[in-house]
Amino acid sequence: MKQLLLGLLLSFGIFATASETLPSWNEGESRANIINYVRAVTDKQNADYIAPKDRIAVFDNDGTLWSEQPAYFQLFFAIDRVKALASEHPEWKTTEPFKSVLENNMEGIVKSGKKGLLQIVGATHAGMDEESFEKIVKQWLKTAKHPTKHRPYTDLIFQPMMELIDYLEANDFKVFIVSGGGIDFMRAFIPEVYGIPSERIIGSTGKVYYENGKIIKEPKIDFIDDKEMKPVAIYYNIGKRPVAAFGNSDGDLAMMQYTEANTNAKTLQLYVHHTDAKREWAYDRKSSIGKLDKGLDYAKIHHWTIVDMKKDWKVIYPFELKK
Amino acid sequence: MKQLLLGLLLSFGIFATASETLPSWNEGESRANIINYVRAVTDKQNADYIAPKDRIAVFDNDGTLWSEQPAYFQLFFAIDRVKALASEHPEWKTTEPFKSVLENNMEGIVKSGKKGLLQIVGATHAGMDEESFEKIVKQWLKTAKHPTKHRPYTDLIFQPMMELIDYLEANDFKVFIVSGGGIDFMRAFIPEVYGIPSERIIGSTGKVYYENGKIIKEPKIDFIDDKEMKPVAIYYNIGKRPVAAFGNSDGDLAMMQYTEANTNAKTLQLYVHHTDAKREWAYDRKSSIGKLDKGLDYAKIHHWTIVDMKKDWKVIYPFELKK
Repeated sequence: MKQLLLGLLLSFGIFATASETLPSWNEGESRANIINYVRAVTDKQNADYIAPKDRIAVFDNDGTLWSEQPAYFQLFFAIDRVKALASEHPEWKTTEPFKSVLENNMEGIVKSGKKGLLQIVGATHAGMDEESFEKIVKQWLKTAKHPTKHRPYTDLIFQPMMELIDYLEANDFKVFIVSGGGIDFMRAFIPEVYGIPSERIIGSTGKVYYENGKIIKEPKIDFIDDKEMKPVAIYYNIGKRPVAAFGNSDGDLAMMQYTEANTNAKTLQLYVHHTDAKREWAYDRKSSIGKLDKGLDYAKIHHWTIVDMKKDWKVIYPFELKK
Repeated sequence: MKQLLLGLLLSFGIFATASETLPSWNEGESRANIINYVRAVTDKQNADYIAPKDRIAVFDNDGTLWSEQPAYFQLFFAIDRVKALASEHPEWKTTEPFKSVLENNMEGIVKSGKKGLLQIVGATHAGMDEESFEKIVKQWLKTAKHPTKHRPYTDLIFQPMMELIDYLEANDFKVFIVSGGGIDFMRAFIPEVYGIPSERIIGSTGKVYYENGKIIKEPKIDFIDDKEMKPVAIYYNIGKRPVAAFGNSDGDLAMMQYTEANTNAKTLQLYVHHTDAKREWAYDRKSSIGKLDKGLDYAKIHHWTIVDMKKDWKVIYPFELKK
């Protein structure tokens, strides 16, 4: 009887733990891979145990932690800024990528890519100090709405991925953002929305200089944190090879391979595959934003975890929880 | 009687705390300034309270956390590397700063400054991956001895400053190194010796590229983290203005002024003034290494804390504790 009671308590215990971990993830291979990995590397008795100081996890942002369609959200911010400042810059009417922005030519803007986006951000904020810029982004995030979802952009974060970040942090992982997005733009919302502090946000940067107690932004690109530059950014900013990497596009492949090449630890690589045309968007090999082609082939061959959003996630966005 | 007992217990309690905080610091203004600052900003009832997430403290390394005479310790490492690799580089015999190194011309090497040092480090490690480099530094630190102190370089860290770092961390400050030293060199010993993880070490960097799962070092300078570039490095790496800054030279002045210009928080600036010719070294305005001239004037006018090593510190190095 005592034995039976103990057995019952134990099974309830296990059941309770299982239901609290990653609650917005459906049972299945993706969820199991994550949980099995975390349990293995945090168990001192396990051969794959990793000391807390080495539990470095890196996450891409656009398309991995929030949506990125029909264009990177930072682009919508930049478009609004270009329009607001256009009267001071008559030359923008005839110079790309500004011309496309002012003509609402979305295709032209998207064609200019991450580099065009950074040019726009650079040009619209030259001469401004970092703290003033942050205020402008925060104000925009409070008022702007996504063109088709008609919600604030920060509503469009992925609930299952937020749970994953919390789960890793609860298991003493140090979580970093390693994104092609502009660093100032990300710093304006990620600490509050994801709970990740500014010193763990790595992104693309513009040139700046120091003067009279302030950091002033210049209209020049310093570093584009994409593809092969993601491992370089990890080297400069973290100085330690990650053990877990999370992305959604070919731009994240090098970062994930750099993680996979860690010979000192068991590693985890996870791709978010956008397969849900109804609740989010469905795109991969042929998308101009968040293209996942070479990465998808590589991930399959190397048995990485590929999250099928439609199948693996109970909800996409946090606001769906309240329904 | 009960009241008396309580009073006794309380006073023992206070006495115990006071004697445990910064034990290698003599009573005096420097120690009091630090303790009063930390108490004020960590007390929720105090108008100067700072939330833990904003408790960012930045420390210079050379001359602030360990000695830097008769030359930056990294220079001794670089000299040993140049000599070890000289047979593969006949051109070094006629090219500065390598010529001076091979001729043991210390004056010539010191003249080449931090830039020369980085050239040497760059040239001796081009084509090497970061992890192999780290192993070489670790091996060197185990075996090399300081030319006049005849001790391993990592013995020459400042005990009172180690206590200060521990004290700040115990009070939920996030401590960062912001140094002109090479980032790979620092990462090879600071995590173990100071207990500060690699992602909180900011330094000068060389160019690198990513290839086949590895970060490969190039013989080019990327960023020299000195003077006005220290606030720039803080912007790129931390993304938040510090509230406390610790240095020892004019190279740290901009970083300390950037901290002082924080309008959101009470701040602390502290200069380590090398005044102890007997136990360490005495130098300031006229030194070619760790020159403290403009900074000393500025610090006096702005009532920053100026540590008089001779007067304020009971011991300089940890090994003195064992005497």
